[in-house]
Amino acid sequence: MHEPNQKITSFSNPKVKYLVSLKERKNREKEGRFFLEGYREITRAKQSWDHRNPLIPRSYPEILCISPECFLGSNEWELIKALNLPIWEFPKAVFEKISHRDRPDGLILIGKIPDYNFHPNILDSFQDEIVLVIEGVEKPGNLGTILRTAEGAGVKLVIVTDPRTDIYSPNVMRSSTGILFTIPVYLGSTEEVLNALIKNKFKTLALTPEVNNPYYNTDLTGKIAIIFGSEQYGLSDKAKEISSDLLSIPMLGEADSLNLALSTGIVIYESLRQRSLNK
Amino acid sequence: MHEPNQKITSFSNPKVKYLVSLKERKNREKEGRFFLEGYREITRAKQSWDHRNPLIPRSYPEILCISPECFLGSNEWELIKALNLPIWEFPKAVFEKISHRDRPDGLILIGKIPDYNFHPNILDSFQDEIVLVIEGVEKPGNLGTILRTAEGAGVKLVIVTDPRTDIYSPNVMRSSTGILFTIPVYLGSTEEVLNALIKNKFKTLALTPEVNNPYYNTDLTGKIAIIFGSEQYGLSDKAKEISSDLLSIPMLGEADSLNLALSTGIVIYESLRQRSLNK
Repeated sequence: MHEPNQKITSFSNPKVKYLVSLKERKNREKEGRFFLEGYREITRAKQSWDHRNPLIPRSYPEILCISPECFLGSNEWELIKALNLPIWEFPKAVFEKISHRDRPDGLILIGKIPDYNFHPNILDSFQDEIVLVIEGVEKPGNLGTILRTAEGAGVKLVIVTDPRTDIYSPNVMRSSTGILFTIPVYLGSTEEVLNALIKNKFKTLALTPEVNNPYYNTDLTGKIAIIFGSEQYGLSDKAKEISSDLLSIPMLGEADSLNLALSTGIVIYESLRQRSLNK
Repeated sequence: MHEPNQKITSFSNPKVKYLVSLKERKNREKEGRFFLEGYREITRAKQSWDHRNPLIPRSYPEILCISPECFLGSNEWELIKALNLPIWEFPKAVFEKISHRDRPDGLILIGKIPDYNFHPNILDSFQDEIVLVIEGVEKPGNLGTILRTAEGAGVKLVIVTDPRTDIYSPNVMRSSTGILFTIPVYLGSTEEVLNALIKNKFKTLALTPEVNNPYYNTDLTGKIAIIFGSEQYGLSDKAKEISSDLLSIPMLGEADSLNLALSTGIVIYESLRQRSLNK
């Protein structure tokens, strides 16, 4: 598909209706398309397309929607040129209708959602590296924050199992600031994923407030997978049963639980700390 | 003031208008009243009123608004009885108008905001303890999450300096799950607070991505204050200048910053870990 660039000014143009329809998950899934908004987010995705990590599921950019009236800086045209995609251009009022933001910055990229289903040979190339498994996550904002933090802490792979949200949701892209495209993220079932990790000699460490075994007393170096449960329900029984060790984050006060993204950050940064000692 | 309990059924009742007006910060500040919603949140505040930590600014509960049609469990009446406050009772439709939630649980407490201005003698009782300073925080949800995490990690005092949000905002109460009432939280200016900490022999450790000095290579035990800047602007020059050390959180990937609450959690839990080694 290569369409010529188009200027679209009418709210009732079918392309506007199509783009607005992508606000709903069921339409994104039916179309198999993602909706990536924002200069920073698109720039990160582009880096990933340019410098291909073979472990990252291969997504395809297709259309760039722009509204120069909304641009915040002067670098937008450079990015637009470098992307080299068919362009749909809109006046500000129409772009605001399409956008998911209160103050859009004039850039939205539509692309094809990759096949991101987990398969065990993804694990073949792993040595002494850390894999993060997030089970049953409910809030896209939490998932995005987790991806951003995991990438910062040097996690090499994130596997989302049995989620209650969709991974290629615009909220995940936004809260991850585009990092969804720069770290390998796969989708699987808890049982399949944990069994594959164990078969590949990963230590599987699952976090739950039900034990009293502070994460920082455990060796978090080497080939490990760290598993977190959902915000509301925690880990599934299956995850607790299959994992090799159960760990906890100490809570000293009245609060009975930490935010999921926060818990994840605390434990993976402890792993980074321990790894830094071995260097 | 001790009013008799009242049943209020009309949307146009002045009490309804008063309660709705408290959705706006300027009205809460003018009235000097906070708006605490939810069974869990009110329960936590009550614990704090019952078991008085003299360092916690003394807030005063005044009115309990209830809507039994909205109750989710059967423990509400016990809490209502124990609170022993004047009760304003509303039908569900009116309560939903007053509530800040999509699905209210039938309990809102109105109380008097305490004097929570920082004064240096708050620091008199501190020995080898950790104090958290959050400068210029913008998002009440971040502040609430920080309070909840700080309390979990055993932080003894949180000082918010030059904030861009109000501390007794309903969003802080909600995202802290009521922990705002169970940990001492004060408000001051960065300069005044840091100088008071230094005078009281606190090591003042400020986090900034501008240095390369991983937080985990620093001794975070003893009498320390950890200082974080705002989401958008980071630390002020003043804070960097006054602090005794600048620390960073390593970031290994493309992402250039971590969420503020997450950064806070990572560093204070490292302090907790180091402290656990000394016991």
